[in-house]
Amino acid sequence: MKKLFFTLIVAATMAACCNTKTDENSGNELIDSSAIVLSNIAQRKSVRHFTNEPVAEEQLKALARAAMAAPTACNKQPWAIVAVNERALLDSLCIALPYAKMLEQAQAAMVVCGDMAKTLEGDGQQFWIQDCSAATENLLLAAEAMGLGAVWTAVYPDSEKIASVTLVLNLPSNLIPLNVIPLGHPTGEDMPKDKWLDENFHMNRY
Amino acid sequence: MKKLFFTLIVAATMAACCNTKTDENSGNELIDSSAIVLSNIAQRKSVRHFTNEPVAEEQLKALARAAMAAPTACNKQPWAIVAVNERALLDSLCIALPYAKMLEQAQAAMVVCGDMAKTLEGDGQQFWIQDCSAATENLLLAAEAMGLGAVWTAVYPDSEKIASVTLVLNLPSNLIPLNVIPLGHPTGEDMPKDKWLDENFHMNRY
Repeated sequence: MKKLFFTLIVAATMAACCNTKTDENSGNELIDSSAIVLSNIAQRKSVRHFTNEPVAEEQLKALARAAMAAPTACNKQPWAIVAVNERALLDSLCIALPYAKMLEQAQAAMVVCGDMAKTLEGDGQQFWIQDCSAATENLLLAAEAMGLGAVWTAVYPDSEKIASVTLVLNLPSNLIPLNVIPLGHPTGEDMPKDKWLDENFHMNRY
Repeated sequence: MKKLFFTLIVAATMAACCNTKTDENSGNELIDSSAIVLSNIAQRKSVRHFTNEPVAEEQLKALARAAMAAPTACNKQPWAIVAVNERALLDSLCIALPYAKMLEQAQAAMVVCGDMAKTLEGDGQQFWIQDCSAATENLLLAAEAMGLGAVWTAVYPDSEKIASVTLVLNLPSNLIPLNVIPLGHPTGEDMPKDKWLDENFHMNRY
């Protein structure tokens, strides 16, 4: 009786707060970490509407830490990440990037920059774009997991936008801002999209 | 007594199989989905050593589904993903890309391609690189979560490598392979790196 009570409560508790699967041997419910990660990837959405709740500096640092976990060509880590939570700076970025109106509502922003002093040489220099894009995706997924909302607004390769962001953030000449990511607590009105298309998947040969 | 027994066992069970935190009101252990996602991002590593265990086609499809959940400029989704699990094709890719020796051991590979027929026009065409890089990072994180190992080996922008992969996979002229991702069950010898550097993080101004 005690065992039945225990089993029922454990199953109910786990089912209520996370994805579960059943262990084939014991019949017990197990926590399925992979389902949580895959669900977070699927649930990530571009969030353009934010509440007034501030974003803590520790949260911004956690997002940057996630970004820096991305792989880079020859492990060059050719990046710098600028976190912004001062209202005046967010407003200046908003004026500099009129297409990024969500900066008016956003409580913070992250700017992922390529550092030309840390890239590979020659043709390999271009890998900073792939490296910093992977870092940005990590950041967006971490934001989703932390209950924050974020949206990738592009800066590079538009030279005017690059110049504007460089001016607002006083970036040195070796940094190129790839994007500006407005951030905040989502109002809940932005929804994820299912973007799977059979025509975009091929087994073995095209 | 019954309650104490229950509380202890639930806490031990949850602590054993996932990250937990304590609810401030009830004192109960709660499953922390965000810790699981952040840990998966931190634990992802470039895996270059694989066992002989095959990778199921359903797993390859799940990886492609994760990739296609990435954001893209103006939601263009300018990509095609080719999954490879035929030994002869993996061997041909290995010959075509001698720097990607891990294809000899790998049980599968994914090739993330940009589709020039689906990109933005003009300067916006270049966004396929950022879009497909974000998709690739999703794929790598999904592999980690599913207990698989993967490593990003670059193809674009090297024109010889692009030509070789195009030939092996019979890609149409509108596709440009960004990378080849050898995949398999990890032997366990590849480890994640902590790449956080204080000098790469800046608050508000550079």
